[in-house]
Amino acid sequence: MHGDPLRKGRLGTGRPPAVAEFLSSMEADRWIAEADVFVDIAHLLMLRRQGIVGEMQATAVLRALVGMAEDGVPETAFDDRYEDIHAGIEAHLITIAGTDAGGRLHMGRSRNDEVATCLRLRLRQELLLHMKAVISLRGVLLRIAGAHTGSVMPGFTHLQHAQPTTLAHHLLGYEQAFARDFERLRDAFARIDLCPLGAAAFASTGYPIDRAYTAGLLGFPALVENTMDAVSARDFALEPLSAWAILMTTASRLCEELIIWSSAFVDFVRLDDAYCSTSSIMPQKKNPDTAEILRAKTGVTSGALVAALTCMKGLPMSYNRDLQDLTPHLWRAADTVSRCLPLLSGMLDTATFMTGRMHEEAGRSNSTATDLADVLVRDFGLPFRTAHGIVGRAVRMGFLTLATLDAAAREMADISLVGLGVTDDVIERALDVTFSVTSRDQPGGPAPEATAAFIGAHEKQLAADSLWVEETRGRIDTALSDLIQSAQDVVQ
Amino acid sequence: MHGDPLRKGRLGTGRPPAVAEFLSSMEADRWIAEADVFVDIAHLLMLRRQGIVGEMQATAVLRALVGMAEDGVPETAFDDRYEDIHAGIEAHLITIAGTDAGGRLHMGRSRNDEVATCLRLRLRQELLLHMKAVISLRGVLLRIAGAHTGSVMPGFTHLQHAQPTTLAHHLLGYEQAFARDFERLRDAFARIDLCPLGAAAFASTGYPIDRAYTAGLLGFPALVENTMDAVSARDFALEPLSAWAILMTTASRLCEELIIWSSAFVDFVRLDDAYCSTSSIMPQKKNPDTAEILRAKTGVTSGALVAALTCMKGLPMSYNRDLQDLTPHLWRAADTVSRCLPLLSGMLDTATFMTGRMHEEAGRSNSTATDLADVLVRDFGLPFRTAHGIVGRAVRMGFLTLATLDAAAREMADISLVGLGVTDDVIERALDVTFSVTSRDQPGGPAPEATAAFIGAHEKQLAADSLWVEETRGRIDTALSDLIQSAQDVVQ
Amino acid sequence: MHGDPLRKGRLGTGRPPAVAEFLSSMEADRWIAEADVFVDIAHLLMLRRQGIVGEMQATAVLRALVGMAEDGVPETAFDDRYEDIHAGIEAHLITIAGTDAGGRLHMGRSRNDEVATCLRLRLRQELLLHMKAVISLRGVLLRIAGAHTGSVMPGFTHLQHAQPTTLAHHLLGYEQAFARDFERLRDAFARIDLCPLGAAAFASTGYPIDRAYTAGLLGFPALVENTMDAVSARDFALEPLSAWAILMTTASRLCEELIIWSSAFVDFVRLDDAYCSTSSIMPQKKNPDTAEILRAKTGVTSGALVAALTCMKGLPMSYNRDLQDLTPHLWRAADTVSRCLPLLSGMLDTATFMTGRMHEEAGRSNSTATDLADVLVRDFGLPFRTAHGIVGRAVRMGFLTLATLDAAAREMADISLVGLGVTDDVIERALDVTFSVTSRDQPGGPAPEATAAFIGAHEKQLAADSLWVEETRGRIDTALSDLIQSAQDVVQ
Amino acid sequence: MHGDPLRKGRLGTGRPPAVAEFLSSMEADRWIAEADVFVDIAHLLMLRRQGIVGEMQATAVLRALVGMAEDGVPETAFDDRYEDIHAGIEAHLITIAGTDAGGRLHMGRSRNDEVATCLRLRLRQELLLHMKAVISLRGVLLRIAGAHTGSVMPGFTHLQHAQPTTLAHHLLGYEQAFARDFERLRDAFARIDLCPLGAAAFASTGYPIDRAYTAGLLGFPALVENTMDAVSARDFALEPLSAWAILMTTASRLCEELIIWSSAFVDFVRLDDAYCSTSSIMPQKKNPDTAEILRAKTGVTSGALVAALTCMKGLPMSYNRDLQDLTPHLWRAADTVSRCLPLLSGMLDTATFMTGRMHEEAGRSNSTATDLADVLVRDFGLPFRTAHGIVGRAVRMGFLTLATLDAAAREMADISLVGLGVTDDVIERALDVTFSVTSRDQPGGPAPEATAAFIGAHEKQLAADSLWVEETRGRIDTALSDLIQSAQDVVQ
Repeated sequence: MHGDPLRKGRLGTGRPPAVAEFLSSMEADRWIAEADVFVDIAHLLMLRRQGIVGEMQATAVLRALVGMAEDGVPETAFDDRYEDIHAGIEAHLITIAGTDAGGRLHMGRSRNDEVATCLRLRLRQELLLHMKAVISLRGVLLRIAGAHTGSVMPGFTHLQHAQPTTLAHHLLGYEQAFARDFERLRDAFARIDLCPLGAAAFASTGYPIDRAYTAGLLGFPALVENTMDAVSARDFALEPLSAWAILMTTASRLCEELIIWSSAFVDFVRLDDAYCSTSSIMPQKKNPDTAEILRAKTGVTSGALVAALTCMKGLPMSYNRDLQDLTPHLWRAADTVSRCLPLLSGMLDTATFMTGRMHEEAGRSNSTATDLADVLVRDFGLPFRTAHGIVGRAVRMGFLTLATLDAAAREMADISLVGLGVTDDVIERALDVTFSVTSRDQPGGPAPEATAAFIGAHEKQLAADSLWVEETRGRIDTALSDLIQSAQDVVQ
Repeated sequence: MHGDPLRKGRLGTGRPPAVAEFLSSMEADRWIAEADVFVDIAHLLMLRRQGIVGEMQATAVLRALVGMAEDGVPETAFDDRYEDIHAGIEAHLITIAGTDAGGRLHMGRSRNDEVATCLRLRLRQELLLHMKAVISLRGVLLRIAGAHTGSVMPGFTHLQHAQPTTLAHHLLGYEQAFARDFERLRDAFARIDLCPLGAAAFASTGYPIDRAYTAGLLGFPALVENTMDAVSARDFALEPLSAWAILMTTASRLCEELIIWSSAFVDFVRLDDAYCSTSSIMPQKKNPDTAEILRAKTGVTSGALVAALTCMKGLPMSYNRDLQDLTPHLWRAADTVSRCLPLLSGMLDTATFMTGRMHEEAGRSNSTATDLADVLVRDFGLPFRTAHGIVGRAVRMGFLTLATLDAAAREMADISLVGLGVTDDVIERALDVTFSVTSRDQPGGPAPEATAAFIGAHEKQLAADSLWVEETRGRIDTALSDLIQSAQDVVQ
Repeated sequence: MHGDPLRKGRLGTGRPPAVAEFLSSMEADRWIAEADVFVDIAHLLMLRRQGIVGEMQATAVLRALVGMAEDGVPETAFDDRYEDIHAGIEAHLITIAGTDAGGRLHMGRSRNDEVATCLRLRLRQELLLHMKAVISLRGVLLRIAGAHTGSVMPGFTHLQHAQPTTLAHHLLGYEQAFARDFERLRDAFARIDLCPLGAAAFASTGYPIDRAYTAGLLGFPALVENTMDAVSARDFALEPLSAWAILMTTASRLCEELIIWSSAFVDFVRLDDAYCSTSSIMPQKKNPDTAEILRAKTGVTSGALVAALTCMKGLPMSYNRDLQDLTPHLWRAADTVSRCLPLLSGMLDTATFMTGRMHEEAGRSNSTATDLADVLVRDFGLPFRTAHGIVGRAVRMGFLTLATLDAAAREMADISLVGLGVTDDVIERALDVTFSVTSRDQPGGPAPEATAAFIGAHEKQLAADSLWVEETRGRIDTALSDLIQSAQDVVQ
Repeated sequence: MHGDPLRKGRLGTGRPPAVAEFLSSMEADRWIAEADVFVDIAHLLMLRRQGIVGEMQATAVLRALVGMAEDGVPETAFDDRYEDIHAGIEAHLITIAGTDAGGRLHMGRSRNDEVATCLRLRLRQELLLHMKAVISLRGVLLRIAGAHTGSVMPGFTHLQHAQPTTLAHHLLGYEQAFARDFERLRDAFARIDLCPLGAAAFASTGYPIDRAYTAGLLGFPALVENTMDAVSARDFALEPLSAWAILMTTASRLCEELIIWSSAFVDFVRLDDAYCSTSSIMPQKKNPDTAEILRAKTGVTSGALVAALTCMKGLPMSYNRDLQDLTPHLWRAADTVSRCLPLLSGMLDTATFMTGRMHEEAGRSNSTATDLADVLVRDFGLPFRTAHGIVGRAVRMGFLTLATLDAAAREMADISLVGLGVTDDVIERALDVTFSVTSRDQPGGPAPEATAAFIGAHEKQLAADSLWVEETRGRIDTALSDLIQSAQDVVQ
C-alpha cells in the first residue's frame, strides 16, 4: 500500500485489497476521528512538555492537528487502504509536517491505548446524549401524567382488565423505570470516564511520559491505571451495551402498549399521523409504525450485546485484533438509542389519549371485584380468602349482584350475605371505579394525591439529574476547548 | 413528502425528517433493489396475461422496468424520504409512465408480499454464493490434507499433547464439519426458494391473478401457499442466520487454532504476510490479524441471529413493521459470511505448514502412552484399566522407562512387567509416533491410507455438491434472463 | 474418591468436593444413562466379535450390562463423586464383573466418542418425540381450521383491522409454519443420526475394531467418519437448538395472539379453565397463564442457543472439557420443547372460538376498503393508486359513503364517482365482508374452497410425515431391541 | 387440586397434571421459600399494627410463621400442585391456623408484589456473596502479584511475544478488571435493595397499609414507589444478569490464559492436580478441566441474560405470567457465579507459576525490539517511525544485530547506524529484558516499583470494599433477626 507508514518494515508482500478492506476499521472509525485528533494533540502537548519531542517538531505537527481540529479530518485519511484512522491521520501528518516531525507523534504510545482512549472519549459523549434524551423522555411522561392524575382507566394483568387505575399512574410506572435506566447510564459513564492513554502496547513505555497530565487535558478525572488491563478490557463497552439493552427492552414494553392501545379494539390512544404509516394496498389503514420499529430495535441492542460478549469470550491478554470488531456493534447500538429515544418522546408528546374510552373500560370485567371482596372483609368480617372465593364464584355465574353473591356465599361457605346486612347499595358503592382509585392512596398508588406527590418528587429528581448532565458536559467541553486553545497557543 | 404516492389519502400531516428516516428501510433496501425490478416485471407480465392491466398501460410500465433492469435502479428511487425502495420505484415508474399506467402495477399485491419475495430472491443468491465459497474452502482443505497424509503432528485434547496424528487428519476434521455446513445451507435454501407473491397484504386478492405463473417466471419451484404465513413468517431468515452462526462458530475454532499455531511457542504454521499485520509500536511483530478478525466475526453472526429472534418474539399475525427491522441483521450477517469464507480459504491456501516442528512435537508429553498401555493389554494380557493405571503412574514419576513402568506395576497391581517379558525394546517400539499413526487405520482415522480414502470419497462428494450449486444457479439465472427477455419482447 | 477407576494413575492428590461436583456432569448425564448402556453393549459385542476381549470376560460384563438394560442403571452409578455416568457405570461393572473383565470394556474407545454417541442416541429420541408432537399440533390446527372455513374474522396488520379473512385461513398460516419446523427437525435428525463411536479420544484406535458394525447395532445408518471431528463437533447440538429456537419463536407468536384474543376487548377465544389461572387478590380474574408461559419459553430456547454458541466459540480441536457444559443447555431446551408442544396443542384443542364476535369485528374499521378500491378499478376503470387515494381520503372524513367518496374523488382527482355510475348499492356490495372473503380464492387464500383444498393437501402431507416418524422410530427401536437380544443370547 | 386456596372461586374445572406442573414455579421457588416467610411475617406485623388483622388471628398465623422461620418451610408446601410457594405456604398456614386467620394474611397484597419482594431479598443475599467472592479473588491476585513483582515474563499481543512484562503486572490487570466487576455488582445491589411490597396486584390497595414500615422491617432502605412499576419491572434481574455476564466473560479470558499457559508448549503454570482431570484412555494426560468448565460457564451467564431479555421483550404492563419464567434463568446464573468464583480463586491460589520458563521466554521473538527502536530515537536522534521501520526490516532479515540493523538503515533511510555511533554494546543493552521492564515505571506499568505501588493502593481499596460488604450484610442480618424477634415477642 502506497504510503502506509506501518508496513515499510516488518512485512514484505503487498496485500490483496479484500484483505486490506477486511482488516480495516475505517467505517467504524468515522465515529472516533474527531476524538483521535484530541488524543493526538493531548499526547503531543505532553511529549513536548516532557521534552520527548523537540519544540520545532512538536509545533509542526501541532499546527497540522489544530488544522484538523478546526476543519475536520480530511477525507484522504479515511482511505480504507489504511488499517484504521490512526494510521490515516498519521500518514496525513507525515505528509504535512514531514517524517521527521510526524513520525515522532507515536512515541510513547501505541494504537492499542490510542484507540481505547478514543472509544472512551466518544462513548462519553454518546452517553451524555443518551442521558439527556432519557431526561427529556421522563419529562414528557411526567408532563402527561400531571395532566391525567384524574383520568381513570383499567389497569391490566395478563392483558386482562384487572383493577381501575389512572393514566397518570400507568405512565409514572415507566417514568420510574426510565429513571433507573438513567442511573445505569450514569454508573456506566463513571467507569468509561477514565484514561488509558500511556499504556502503549500494554506495558506502558520507557519514555518519561506524564499520564496524569494527558488525562487531565482530555477531561478524564482519573486513569485506567494498570496498563495491561487498559488496552485489553472492553467491559467499558459491554456495560453501556447492557444498559442500552435493558433500556430498549423497557421501551419495547411501552411501545407494545401503544400498539395495543392504538388498535380499534382498545382505542385508548391516537398517535399523531406523523408517526404512522398507511398501507400500500389498504387505503383505510393508519398503522403505528414508529412504535413497531421502536419495539423491534430491542433486537439491535440485544443483538449487539451478544455480538460483543461473543467477541470477548475467551480472549487472552492483552490486545487482540478481535477487539476491533467489537466496535461496530458498539456504535450501531449507540446510534440506535440516540435515534430511538427522541422519537419515543415525540410520539408520546404528540399522542392523544382517549380518556373517555379509558373511563368506559375502567369498570369492565368486574375490575372492582377486589374492592367488593375487601368490603366484605372490612365491613362484614369475612375472612379474606373466603370473600375472594365468594366473589370469584359469583363472577363465574355471570354477574356481581346481591343475588349471585348471596348464592355463592351459601354454596361455598354456608353464609348468607343478606343475613349479614349486605345490600344492593353496599355492592354498588364497592364496585364504583372512582371510589376504587381514590381509596388507593398509598405512596406510589393511583390515587390523585399519591400520583401528584410522586410527580412533585420526581420533577425535583429530574432537575437534579439534568443539572448533573449539564455540569458533566460542561466540565468535558471546557477541558477539550482548553486543550485546543493550548495547542493554538503553541502554534501561534 | 413531495410525491410519495402512499401518503396522499389516509394520512394528513407532514412528517418530520427524523421520523421519515427512522421508518425508511432504504439503506437495507439497496440489497433488494434489483430483485424488486424482477418482481415488478413478473407481476406485471402476469397482470397483463390475466387481462387485469391493459396492453398499453402494461407496455408503458414494462418499458420503464426493462430500462431499470438494464441500467440499474436510478439513484432518485433511493431517496430516504420514501419509506422503502418499493415506493421509490413506484414513484419513478409513475414519473415515467404516468399515474394511469404506473399506478396499476400494485394491483393484486401489497408491499408485504412484494418485500417477502424480494428478500427470498436475494437470499437465494447469497446462499448460492456461500455454498460455492464453502465448496472452495473444502477444496483447499482437501488439497492441503492430500499433501500431508504423512505429516505427523501431535493431536490435542484440552490443549494438551494427547496422541500423534497427522496434519491431513486434523484438517479433514474441518472439511467434514464444513460439509455439514454446506448441507445446512442447502436445506435452508430449499425453504427459501418458494414464492410468496400474490399473498398481497395477507389475504391474497380478489383480482384473478395467477400465482403459479409469477412463481415460475421468478424461478421458484413452488409457492409459499397460505398467504397469511407468506407475509408474516421470517423463519426463512432465521434459518440461514442459524446456519451462518453455526458455520462461523466452526470457523472461529479453526482460526483459534491458526492463531495458536502461529505463536512462537508452537510455530506449526506461518501465515502469509498478506494476511498479517505488524504493530504501530513494536517493529518485530507479525500478527495473525485476519484470523483474529475472522474469529471475532462469530460475534456478528451470533448477534444478528439474536437480534432477529428478539425481533420476531411474540409478534402477532400478520405483517408488522417490526419485520422491516429484521432485514438489516440478515444482510449484515450474509455479507459477513460472504467476505469471511474466501479470506479463510485464502489464508489457509497460502499458509506454510511447518511439518518439521510438528514432527518434533508429535511424541512430546508421552503422547504415545496410550499405545504403550495398549501393547501391555494386547501382547502381555493386562486388563485395560490396570495398564492405563500403570502407565499413568509411571508418567507421574517422570519418564516412561522399563524401570518406572515396572515400579508402577509392582506398586499398583503387584505385577512385574519384566517378569511378563516386557523389554526396553518393546517399550521403544510402542512409543514410536509413526507406529502409532499407521496403526490407527480405522475409517476416519489418521493412518495415511485412511485419510487418503477419505479424501477420495470427499472429492467425489465435493464435485457432486459443486454440480448441484451450478445447476441450481443455472436454473435461476435462466429463469431470470427469460423473464427479462419476455418483458423485452413485449416492449419492442 | 474411593473407587474412581480413572484417578488411580496419573493424578495424585485428593480433590475437594466442590471441585468434584463442579467437574461432574452427573445431573445432565441422567439423560444419557440408558443410552450409555446401549453403547456399552454394542461396543462390547463388537470387541468380543473382533476377538479383542475374550469370551469369558465379555460374558461377565455383558451380563451386568443386560441387568442394567433390564432394571435400569443403579443409583450408585450416579454418585456425583464420579466425573460422569460413564465412570459411574464402569465402576459398577468393575464391582460386579471384576477389574479384569470390567476394565476391558473401555478398550478401543474413550469417553470422548462414548459421550458423543450417547448424546446422539438420546437426541435422536428427543427429536422423534418433538416431530410427533409437531404433527399433533398441526393436526389440531387442521381440525379446527376444517371446522371454520366459513368463520369470517378480521385479519390484522400492525394489530389494526385490515381485511376480512377466516379463522381457518389464520390458523392454517400457523400450520404451514409448523410444517417447516417439522422439516427443520427432520433435516437436523439426519445429521444427528450418525455414529461417532470408534473415534476414541480423537485419533481412533490401534485395536482392530469394526466401526460399521457398532453403528449398525445402534441403529445408525452411517458413521461420523473423520474421528477428529467426531469427538470435537457439536453442531449436531447447535442445529436442533436453532430449530427449537425458531419453532418456539413461532409458538410465541401464536400465544401472543391467544392472549390478545382472550382479552375482554377482543374476546375471540375462551381458553379452557384448565389452562388458566385466577388471581390471588382479584377474584374475577381468569388469566391465560399457559399461553403466557409458553410465550416466555422462547427465552429458554433462545437463551440455550446463545449459551451453546458462546460455549463453542473459539474452541480448538479436539475435545475440550467445555463441551461437557454445553449439554445441560441442550437438555433444558429439549425438555422445554417436549413439554410445550403438547400443552399448546391441548390449549388450542380445548379452546372455544367466539365466531360471533369475530364476525362482528370482521367489517370494522373499514376493513373492506381495499375491496371497494378494487371495484372502482375493476368496474369503473380508475387507476389503482388513484382509487386507493380516494378511498383513503374518504376514510379520513369518517365514513365510506357515496357522498364522502364522491367528495374525495373530486378533491383528489377531479372525478365524479356518481358521474361514473357508482351507486350506494355498488358501495354496499363492495364493502360486504363475505363477498370479500369468497372473492379471495387464490391458492392459499381465505376463500372457503381455497382453505378446504389446502386442508386436504396438508392432511396428506401430515399423514406422510407421520408415517416417516413411525418408520424411523420403528427402525431404531428394532435395532436397539435386537441389540439387547444379541446380548442376552450371549449371556444365556 | 385438593386444597388449593386459589381455585375454589373463579375457575371451575380440574386441571391436568401436565398443566399444573407447567404453570408451577415450585422448583425455582425453593430459592425464595425462606424469603417468603420473612415477607409474610413483615406483612403480618404491619397488618396487625395497622389494625387490619385482629390480634388473635395475627398471633395464630405468626406462630405458624415463626415455626417455619425456625424449622424451615415444610416439604408439603413445595408440592408442585400448588402454583407457587406463596400458595403452598398459605395453604400450610390455613391448615395450621385455620381459614379465618390464615385467610387474612393476603389482605392488602398480591402475589405480584410478594414475589417481587422475595426475589429482591434473595438476590440481595446472592449479590453480597458474589461481592465477597470477588473480593477473595482480588485478594488472591494481589497476593500472587505481590510475590512476583520481579518475575519477568513475555507479554503478548495477538498471542505473539510482544514486550517483556512481569507476572505481577499481568495478574494485576485482572485484579483491576475484577474491581470494576465488584463496582457493577454494588451498583446493581443499590437498585435491588428497594421494597416493592404494598404494590399488591399493581394498584396498591384500599387497606390502610404502611409501606415504609414493612420496608424497614425487611431491611430495605427505600421503596420501589410507583406500584405499577413495582410489580412489572424486572430490570432488577436484568442488571445483575448483565453484570454476571461481563464478569464471567472476564473470567473466561483468565481461564483461556491458564489453559494456554498449562500447555506443554508454554508451561508457565502448573495447576494443582485437584483442579485437573486425566483421560479415560490416555494415561499420561493431566488436563486443566476446571479452567475449561469455568471458561464454558460464560455460556450460562450470557445465555441466561439473553433468555431474560427475550422473556421481557414487548411485555405490556403490568404483571404477566411470563415474568415467572424469567426467574429460573436468574437463579441458574446466580448459582453459577457463586460456584465459579471460589473455584477460580482456589485454582489460582494453588497454582505453581513457572518463573524460570517465563524468564526464558521473556526475550524471545525480539520482544525488546521496541526498546531498541526507542534507543535509536532517544540516543541517536532518529525519527520514531524511521527507527520502527529499520528495526522491523532487520527482524525480517532474521536477527537483530548491528550488521542487519545497519543494512536495514541504509536500505530504508540511507543512514549508517555505525556512522551514528551505534555499537554492539548499545544494541545488547537495549535488548535486555530486565532493562526493558524496569524502565517502564509509569503508573500502572510493569516496573517493580510501579506494581508495588499499585498493590499497596489496591489492598487499601480491597479493605474498604470488604468493609462495605460486611457492613451491608450486617445491616440486613440485623433487620431480619429483629423481624423474627418482633414476631416471637408477639407469639410468646
